[in-house]
Amino acid sequence: MTTFTYTREIKIAWAHCDPAGIVFNPRFFEFFDTNSWGLFEAALGINQHDFAKTYGIVGIALVDARGNFMKPVAFGDTVEVISHVSEFRRSSFDVEHKIINRGEVAVEGRESRVWAVRRKDDPDTITTAPIPAEVVAKFG
Amino acid sequence: MTTFTYTREIKIAWAHCDPAGIVFNPRFFEFFDTNSWGLFEAALGINQHDFAKTYGIVGIALVDARGNFMKPVAFGDTVEVISHVSEFRRSSFDVEHKIINRGEVAVEGRESRVWAVRRKDDPDTITTAPIPAEVVAKFG
Amino acid sequence: MTTFTYTREIKIAWAHCDPAGIVFNPRFFEFFDTNSWGLFEAALGINQHDFAKTYGIVGIALVDARGNFMKPVAFGDTVEVISHVSEFRRSSFDVEHKIINRGEVAVEGRESRVWAVRRKDDPDTITTAPIPAEVVAKFG
Amino acid sequence: MTTFTYTREIKIAWAHCDPAGIVFNPRFFEFFDTNSWGLFEAALGINQHDFAKTYGIVGIALVDARGNFMKPVAFGDTVEVISHVSEFRRSSFDVEHKIINRGEVAVEGRESRVWAVRRKDDPDTITTAPIPAEVVAKFG
Repeated sequence: MTTFTYTREIKIAWAHCDPAGIVFNPRFFEFFDTNSWGLFEAALGINQHDFAKTYGIVGIALVDARGNFMKPVAFGDTVEVISHVSEFRRSSFDVEHKIINRGEVAVEGRESRVWAVRRKDDPDTITTAPIPAEVVAKFG
Repeated sequence: MTTFTYTREIKIAWAHCDPAGIVFNPRFFEFFDTNSWGLFEAALGINQHDFAKTYGIVGIALVDARGNFMKPVAFGDTVEVISHVSEFRRSSFDVEHKIINRGEVAVEGRESRVWAVRRKDDPDTITTAPIPAEVVAKFG
Repeated sequence: MTTFTYTREIKIAWAHCDPAGIVFNPRFFEFFDTNSWGLFEAALGINQHDFAKTYGIVGIALVDARGNFMKPVAFGDTVEVISHVSEFRRSSFDVEHKIINRGEVAVEGRESRVWAVRRKDDPDTITTAPIPAEVVAKFG
Repeated sequence: MTTFTYTREIKIAWAHCDPAGIVFNPRFFEFFDTNSWGLFEAALGINQHDFAKTYGIVGIALVDARGNFMKPVAFGDTVEVISHVSEFRRSSFDVEHKIINRGEVAVEGRESRVWAVRRKDDPDTITTAPIPAEVVAKFG
């Protein structure tokens, strides 16, 4: 487990909520996605827009995502989304997310992502590549 | 496992796609959600808007969701989202989803949901209730 | 005004709705966007994914959008989104949209779009180009 | 024109962007919506979740929205969304939004909204009500 942690505060907006007045679940996966990019930006010290150019990647592509919705998060709540890489593998890694609302863990998420590149012989096809050691090192 | 299956065709739109030109993952969870409602509407023979009134529920609230993204789904593709209830429990159930693109399973999803009602003594709080036998029976 | 019209039926889903139980307004702009692409696909007879390759464009980029929300559209409603190009200019055009719900016009939309290309001398910058006469001709 | 202004900073995320790598236009209308709620929250000094209870309204419902997209806003950009009420009428009002990117106005928006309430004799129907003078007064 890496030690670098990234936290973002979100004010839950009308835009995020469904007819039950609580966050519509795909929004949580959007929160996770945005936090994973933010986590890498914070760790690497590079604007997320420049990951592609700097590392020659398409992105940090998602291959598996899971959310566990333990307590409702409602319109008007202010939450913290706390994220860290729980494991780096050769060309993939896991990110764990916790959403804290009113002092409790309301949602837990886990994503598996890959270091995604375009195939040189077929740029329309996306494949994986080894994560540079310098990248992993930034996460402590 | 119940036998009732619901299938919906989706044309992948510009709206669904991210800067890599493929479906942004929270959209898959939106596809799952819409299919779960559509599955119940088809099985129960009642417009989804009327579930609340007919059954005295807030909705079929999500407690856990998982997506496994095996192959990219791109702008312009036409996919099928195929859904069924894999298990009914007392007040909860699981829905499994498959997204078929170009003849292959591109995405697999699984949701755990509860039969959600407002607490009588505290209408701002949502709790679970037993799923009526007549509801379960409709799924075969 | 061109005569080619494109109509798409949408079942209003839980996903589209806000805490008031009606469609959250940015969804209408998403409906318009998807219909504009669908309109071009239907008129040109080319999958929308291939517009970029076929015409050397980035897309049909939006420069102005307007929605007039006259009647609510609610969870469970089935609407028709009807779209046509109201005017072609040299490198831009207007698309008008109507959303019909329960036999009445519930929403009217209008978009102004441009035929968007990457600048040859600076591919990160998007500019406009003349719309090919053959494209305009397809709209009648 | 009222003088009270509300500003929110947004980091443009992967989640906001389309295959052209720029903000997908319905997101701007989402930004406007969230800013309108934030503007009222800031002016009224009440959590937006409590507007309904405090004022007996369903919300500040949108009847017309317009966006003018002058310059692209790209993945990784940090923008400011600046909003104020340009006019209060009896039961409706206009909100104007500006999105500033790299020191320039990239997007202008305008919304017309109504003070929306449920009809007493038919709670499924939403109608308008006069905006309380105390509300208008808070905007200066």
